[in-house]
Amino acid sequence: MPIHTDRTYELQLEKLRASVLEMGGLVEDQIAQAMRALTARDQTLARATIERDHMVNRLDVEIDDLALKLLALHQPAARDLRLITTALKVTTDLERIGDLAEHIAERATELAGELPIKPSIDLPRMAELARDMLRRSLDAFVREDEKLALSVCNADDTIDQLHGQLFRELVEFMAEDPRTVSRAMRLLFVSKYLERVGDHATNIAEMVIFMVKGRSIRHLDRPPREL
Amino acid sequence: MPIHTDRTYELQLEKLRASVLEMGGLVEDQIAQAMRALTARDQTLARATIERDHMVNRLDVEIDDLALKLLALHQPAARDLRLITTALKVTTDLERIGDLAEHIAERATELAGELPIKPSIDLPRMAELARDMLRRSLDAFVREDEKLALSVCNADDTIDQLHGQLFRELVEFMAEDPRTVSRAMRLLFVSKYLERVGDHATNIAEMVIFMVKGRSIRHLDRPPREL
Repeated sequence: MPIHTDRTYELQLEKLRASVLEMGGLVEDQIAQAMRALTARDQTLARATIERDHMVNRLDVEIDDLALKLLALHQPAARDLRLITTALKVTTDLERIGDLAEHIAERATELAGELPIKPSIDLPRMAELARDMLRRSLDAFVREDEKLALSVCNADDTIDQLHGQLFRELVEFMAEDPRTVSRAMRLLFVSKYLERVGDHATNIAEMVIFMVKGRSIRHLDRPPREL
Repeated sequence: MPIHTDRTYELQLEKLRASVLEMGGLVEDQIAQAMRALTARDQTLARATIERDHMVNRLDVEIDDLALKLLALHQPAARDLRLITTALKVTTDLERIGDLAEHIAERATELAGELPIKPSIDLPRMAELARDMLRRSLDAFVREDEKLALSVCNADDTIDQLHGQLFRELVEFMAEDPRTVSRAMRLLFVSKYLERVGDHATNIAEMVIFMVKGRSIRHLDRPPREL
């Protein structure tokens, strides 16, 4: 194989990593923007979040195309093969996170038109945690760092606990004042969406561990403390 | 390449298709079983559904391994390459459907211990629709039938409408009688899980269309009426 082909191959792999990171940055921003729209009761910002989705979708198609091209033209083996197939799977999770940001923005639009209810909830904290997990899972992907990936898996419990706590609070809230039901439900959905962002970040992290180590931890009941 | 290698390759491709179908059949059964546990208020059946999850997980790992082996050893091109990478992505959706069946079973366990509430809801009908969509999306995958796949995408609206209707009914229900809040919420979650099963089936169908046609319809606002 002539040297310039190897060079092209390396450049394309680098482009693949960069595109995954770009797509991750976009959906992370979408989550942040949707949450700002929710807390500021800003319908314009909420709608802008929904409209940004096409940028995520364009990257999703681009990454799939690039990965298929790399597989077809360069017949990569072992570790590179796992990198490329992982990229293919990671985009699915990132696209779903983009959809969840859109859903948060939809709930923000609905809630902006109603009187606010203020139970002691901590949705912004959950969003911060979820975004942090996402960021670290993608750093772990580009750096092929399985320890960083494992730290993401171990963080998922916290976000699940926060969601459980919020669920109980909001159920109590609705039972005490039935007029809050539809608003409380919408906040509860946002909590559920953020919990799912955490799940997607965990999925990405688990795939990164498989990519690096060549073995799956996906179906252990608990993530191992160390690898 | 000697003939027996081609033969091995064909057999392995066939095995890949069969395993995806087997995994699909398993998660479809899991949904059915979880719904039976919910309607019959049967905690033992609900727990059995949760325990079946390891069979799904075993197939998930097997399919990923086989797909990677096919990519590494046989360097497939064009249509076969798309088949194999699609199988890799389809397992992610199937695994999540298995998780959703588990969640339904968990809600069934909780609800079995409480007094039933009976709003005019139609969860079993939603489950039937979702399972039918799943079955057709996987048939479309093994038969490489893009028309069948498109029919799945067009069915997703019905299940979304049923969920929206149920959401409004249950919110009203909770507002009228606050003592029903936690039970109604659990039913609402089941409805949401079933809606997501429909979303996963739609994702699979969209990937099948890409696999067969080599172009993506994933990011059109509406699925086209015909291809």
